Amino acid sequence: MLAERVSQLNAEYARAIDDDRLESWPDFFADPCGMLKDRVTALREANIYERQAYRHLVGLPALRAGAGDAVHAETPFLVVRVMRDGSMDLFATGRYVDTMVDEGGTLRFRERLVVCDSSRVDTLLAIPL
Amino acid sequence: MLAERVSQLNAEYARAIDDDRLESWPDFFADPCGMLKDRVTALREANIYERQAYRHLVGLPALRAGAGDAVHAETPFLVVRVMRDGSMDLFATGRYVDTMVDEGGTLRFRERLVVCDSSRVDTLLAIPL
Amino acid sequence: MLAERVSQLNAEYARAIDDDRLESWPDFFADPCGMLKDRVTALREANIYERQAYRHLVGLPALRAGAGDAVHAETPFLVVRVMRDGSMDLFATGRYVDTMVDEGGTLRFRERLVVCDSSRVDTLLAIPL
Repeated sequence: MLAERVSQLNAEYARAIDDDRLESWPDFFADPCGMLKDRVTALREANIYERQAYRHLVGLPALRAGAGDAVHAETPFLVVRVMRDGSMDLFATGRYVDTMVDEGGTLRFRERLVVCDSSRVDTLLAIPL
Repeated sequence: MLAERVSQLNAEYARAIDDDRLESWPDFFADPCGMLKDRVTALREANIYERQAYRHLVGLPALRAGAGDAVHAETPFLVVRVMRDGSMDLFATGRYVDTMVDEGGTLRFRERLVVCDSSRVDTLLAIPL
Repeated sequence: MLAERVSQLNAEYARAIDDDRLESWPDFFADPCGMLKDRVTALREANIYERQAYRHLVGLPALRAGAGDAVHAETPFLVVRVMRDGSMDLFATGRYVDTMVDEGGTLRFRERLVVCDSSRVDTLLAIPL
């Protein structure tokens, strides 16, 4: 079912980030522009990412009817940040506003808007949410 | 499947609150009494609701056999509160203890008990959880 | 479907702990060794468990192909701790790395590794995560 496929995509996306497999992050997008890969390269070179880890908890998607074959969904999320010293904090909450397409049997994001609930965003934020 | 329908109902209920669409909140209930609408009206007039926003993360429902056509479920939840200045805190956790009925193909709550884990409840609590 | 069965198992496991039904905890394991029951007995006798309660939020499992009939899954979790005085804190986040088997129609854990994100684990930790 569609809701389940969207949930699986969300779960895999979150795992890739939480497992620090950022190189596979562009693969979740249909026709990823080079910007995504550049961002990952920059992250790796800056080594900023090593100071912390994330843990995503992703809720159930609310599906919307879309034009053509596109799938629209809105999905709540919560991200906990785990610092190297072991301290944890509630880093971000919000919702993903997504447009997805099926590419040869694989669901991918055509667009993912990450709408955070809080206006306070860590200015050094570099790891994708 | 039933578990999926219950999850969808939970997701829509949480979204309505998190999106500040409180006017649609009574619609999630079968035969809503006027009290629910009065509460929303009171909230809007008091403007209390503007000072903060919620983000619900709702877990998987555990279904119970019910008498007749009623559906019983117990579902864990977590609510983060986002204040206007951008600060976030863990506002509440607990479980929904629900009785639902199918009304012409739409699942609605006949009763929703919100059982919070903590005895510390914000005394100004007005927005439904 | 398999993902749904795994989710249901996770939901029931989390509920048993959050409802303080620790005596049913060994039942979630295939061929539970006596150690699990001993641990619960020790917890009850020590009365440590009474000082706090947990609330689990469990994410969607990512399924892996397994040898034979075994099912492998990795599932993110978040645990909030609620102290007796009503205060709450983010207690742990991480992922379950599970091997499950079907025993006469019931899915049970053959092995559950609880991998916490943080190295800071409460040294008095006794209640299973």
